[in-house]
Amino acid sequence: MKILALSKVYQLLEPGPVVLLTTACQGRANVMTLSWHMMVEFEPPLVACVVSNRNYSFAALRAIKECVIAIPARGLAHKVVEVGNCSGRSVDKFKKFGLTAAPAELVAAPLVAECFANLECKVVDAHFVNKYSMFILEVLKAWIDPAQENPKTIHHHGYGRFVVDGEMIKLKSRMP
Amino acid sequence: MKILALSKVYQLLEPGPVVLLTTACQGRANVMTLSWHMMVEFEPPLVACVVSNRNYSFAALRAIKECVIAIPARGLAHKVVEVGNCSGRSVDKFKKFGLTAAPAELVAAPLVAECFANLECKVVDAHFVNKYSMFILEVLKAWIDPAQENPKTIHHHGYGRFVVDGEMIKLKSRMP
Repeated sequence: MKILALSKVYQLLEPGPVVLLTTACQGRANVMTLSWHMMVEFEPPLVACVVSNRNYSFAALRAIKECVIAIPARGLAHKVVEVGNCSGRSVDKFKKFGLTAAPAELVAAPLVAECFANLECKVVDAHFVNKYSMFILEVLKAWIDPAQENPKTIHHHGYGRFVVDGEMIKLKSRMP
Repeated sequence: MKILALSKVYQLLEPGPVVLLTTACQGRANVMTLSWHMMVEFEPPLVACVVSNRNYSFAALRAIKECVIAIPARGLAHKVVEVGNCSGRSVDKFKKFGLTAAPAELVAAPLVAECFANLECKVVDAHFVNKYSMFILEVLKAWIDPAQENPKTIHHHGYGRFVVDGEMIKLKSRMP
């Protein structure tokens, strides 16, 4: 995997893809499926995400304050749904679904080797956790897999319906 | 336009489309382009969004605490970009870009008649505005245009590149 400039991270998350979020707590790695995230700042990249306290990952994220956001392409859609259908309380999801936990550089949470992008994150603000289960993350390091060219992401429409990226259009925008 | 059940609002925003955000302040309506939003709660639907204080809409949203999130389909992509390229400080964007400001029911901010969905919102929490320009909105009323069937949304990848929705796939998910 190659390093991606932090200034480009928003281009990965702003389109709203379904992502995986990994944590590690007491030597045990876990992974969950997540769609409730948004960019908050360009650089350093800040990301807000909502992780329900019903999720097993919630306690690990709150305690360890580190995670990885991994972005899967369309080919992983089935596994992404299976990850979302079960809990790390009872399942080693990496093992069960054949996902490869690769070591990150700056956080204990693992990268997901099959994903085309991985973002190492730390929780920089937990003030909104109690009220909204919302964590503010700073992306410390970003990786992309150059072997996955023009990856198409998936977007959750509810109850198992996902829209896959279609055509890319280019318009004359002054927005970054 | 038809009323959409509030329980279904997340299905519109969770996929991460580019949206328009309208405000009205001292009898003057404005509209901006926005991609930094996420769901925070299913029902009542809570939405977080980041509106930079460099945007003209910021002051109106902070003062009046009301807005409409309007979701454009692909056919409006050119206008959406033009809306994002200029400021309401100097331009009546509804007039300039031929967008129709329709009266909302519960807020002063207008609906955008050309959009396939319109969400009337009030600001319910402004605690994160100073630090992150982040507003927590509650969706009070939701409208869809039944004449726009299976609308395809656009997703911002930066610098004028937008991905249009492609195929819809259905997987066996236990997630709502």
